[in-house]
Amino acid sequence: MTTTTPGNAAHDATPDTPARATAPVGPLATSAFVRACRREPVPHTPVWFMRQAGRSLPEYRQLRSGIGMLESCRRPDLVAEITMQPVRRHGVDAAILFSDIVVPVAAAGVELDIVAGTGPVIAEPVRSAADVGRLRRITPDDVGFVDEAVRLLVAALGATPLIGFAGAPFTLASYLVEGGPSRTHGRTKALMYGDPQTWHALCARLAEITLEFLRVQVAAGVAAVQLFDSWAGTLSEADYRRHVLPHSAAVLHGLADAGVPRIHFGVGTAELLEAMGEAGADVVGVDWRTPLDAATARIGPDRAVQGNLDPCLLLAPWPVVRTEVRRVLADGLAAPGHVFNLGHGVLPETDPDVLTRVVDLVHETSQR
Amino acid sequence: MTTTTPGNAAHDATPDTPARATAPVGPLATSAFVRACRREPVPHTPVWFMRQAGRSLPEYRQLRSGIGMLESCRRPDLVAEITMQPVRRHGVDAAILFSDIVVPVAAAGVELDIVAGTGPVIAEPVRSAADVGRLRRITPDDVGFVDEAVRLLVAALGATPLIGFAGAPFTLASYLVEGGPSRTHGRTKALMYGDPQTWHALCARLAEITLEFLRVQVAAGVAAVQLFDSWAGTLSEADYRRHVLPHSAAVLHGLADAGVPRIHFGVGTAELLEAMGEAGADVVGVDWRTPLDAATARIGPDRAVQGNLDPCLLLAPWPVVRTEVRRVLADGLAAPGHVFNLGHGVLPETDPDVLTRVVDLVHETSQR
Repeated sequence: MTTTTPGNAAHDATPDTPARATAPVGPLATSAFVRACRREPVPHTPVWFMRQAGRSLPEYRQLRSGIGMLESCRRPDLVAEITMQPVRRHGVDAAILFSDIVVPVAAAGVELDIVAGTGPVIAEPVRSAADVGRLRRITPDDVGFVDEAVRLLVAALGATPLIGFAGAPFTLASYLVEGGPSRTHGRTKALMYGDPQTWHALCARLAEITLEFLRVQVAAGVAAVQLFDSWAGTLSEADYRRHVLPHSAAVLHGLADAGVPRIHFGVGTAELLEAMGEAGADVVGVDWRTPLDAATARIGPDRAVQGNLDPCLLLAPWPVVRTEVRRVLADGLAAPGHVFNLGHGVLPETDPDVLTRVVDLVHETSQR
Repeated sequence: MTTTTPGNAAHDATPDTPARATAPVGPLATSAFVRACRREPVPHTPVWFMRQAGRSLPEYRQLRSGIGMLESCRRPDLVAEITMQPVRRHGVDAAILFSDIVVPVAAAGVELDIVAGTGPVIAEPVRSAADVGRLRRITPDDVGFVDEAVRLLVAALGATPLIGFAGAPFTLASYLVEGGPSRTHGRTKALMYGDPQTWHALCARLAEITLEFLRVQVAAGVAAVQLFDSWAGTLSEADYRRHVLPHSAAVLHGLADAGVPRIHFGVGTAELLEAMGEAGADVVGVDWRTPLDAATARIGPDRAVQGNLDPCLLLAPWPVVRTEVRRVLADGLAAPGHVFNLGHGVLPETDPDVLTRVVDLVHETSQR
């Protein structure tokens, strides 16, 4: 891969000018991953895996042993090492910053813990205008550990792009309102329907927090960002457009001047793909329920797609995996740009060797 | 409501001729519910609620106090009383047999328990051809308690139709393979992809069990059946068609001669609505993610729809509920037949008075 300009201008951004980071140039801009996000010709389809840095890797489980999730996300040395592990092992085309969706709200002073086997547990759920009023903005200093981790990683990763990471306002709001993970999001929706003013105030504040969190990452050198709206798929399109889209758009449009591709992903979003693209995504993540060609027809020609192998498929025998990987690649040819990924995160019980084989197969099969 | 023929022929069917039950006639056939299922003109849109017999009602919680779920489902007096409670309280247009998805597999000898707050827990998960081989068929005698409960109910309900109830093969298979509820259905899909022969043998046997379970209900006088494929929405359409549809079709087509409307429902099935209709449904249940007019466009003119208010909406203030109920009714006008329902089960925290108000509102608004 050739470098057309020396160095990487994004490295020169400083934390106090977070919004002025410039687009990736040099090796990052010519990487297959960034090119696919921009719908430019690629030498091969790039591939990475949601949750590639995590529980499927023995080296991750060893490193995390005895260290809580929140602490892991706040220690730059650990974040860097965990983020690098799947790059070294699998040869993926992009790294994704190891973090958790609640890290920026914890940085905003919300008392919470990430309980193994459960997920985030919020000490005092946010359910009233007064609760929202206590939710403060964050400054770059609140997340200095992320700035440091990204800088360590950008230096170590070289030509491999690093994807920044944040949860979208709706998903964050759901954790804060419910007090933890929820199957139905009943309290969240009750607030959304019943007290739209408080709802919008909450999501607007969460959008500010998320935008600042991502700006710090962009300033420190990430080559792209992914905004995870894990639970958006629980909404109808009408509710998504009315209650959620404006806040996701505030984050995504707020990064328009950063010049890095913005990936937007949720699960179970068959009815939302078009709207999630309109929220300001350059790349729309698609789960396995919607074939990529059908997804492209809904999303339109102005956005790339990312996805969408069913993570459960990696538990099947290799010939089945191979057939399905090739099918996903074939479906992806209908899109103006395709980043190969799973349709959701890597399952903990996945054999990491299968992930490595998938990377090789994607590269071989898609060689232009 | 006038009766065109005397009595109800379905009452005369006996348990030893379960497949020869005849279609509802008399008051049941002229009920708004059965007419809507058959896409016939109705005096008003009929309404019932999935899980209407259950945890939202104080009289239910009182009755169930100290009695396990499986025992409740096996005691005809309790089944009848629990099934009647929402009919008395809300004036819904149909009752649904109180049961649980795992009742027929328990009747087939699978050792299991229904654990409060968790769901079904299977003592020895089914994961091999040998395990499937041990799964025996059921006879009407294995589920005599259901026959008895249905007969009690048909006598007590009069002109209010009773809907029979069973889980579909995929959802049952998931419980059996996983050993309990699963968020990802990883083991289930691994079996489905990795050992299709065992998978199809398992689902074929579950289809036999389910069909027998429903035939007993039809013979005892239910006016319709609902086949719940709760977890089908976790599948892509291609996987659904290849691995699941044939088995759901075996159940639904097996009831074609029974002459009662067959409702088929799953959650998160935006991509599956057409295929679920093709499986042999007269009525396709739709969750709140897909508007009923859009659903109808996919399902086609030969099937009615059922749904689809978001159950979380019932936690919102009444003016919001009212607006959304009216919107669902308006969307439903696009369908050749519409049974008003929620898009999933009633949440336990729902105020039952709101359910009653929704019934009244549906009736008032849709008066022809």
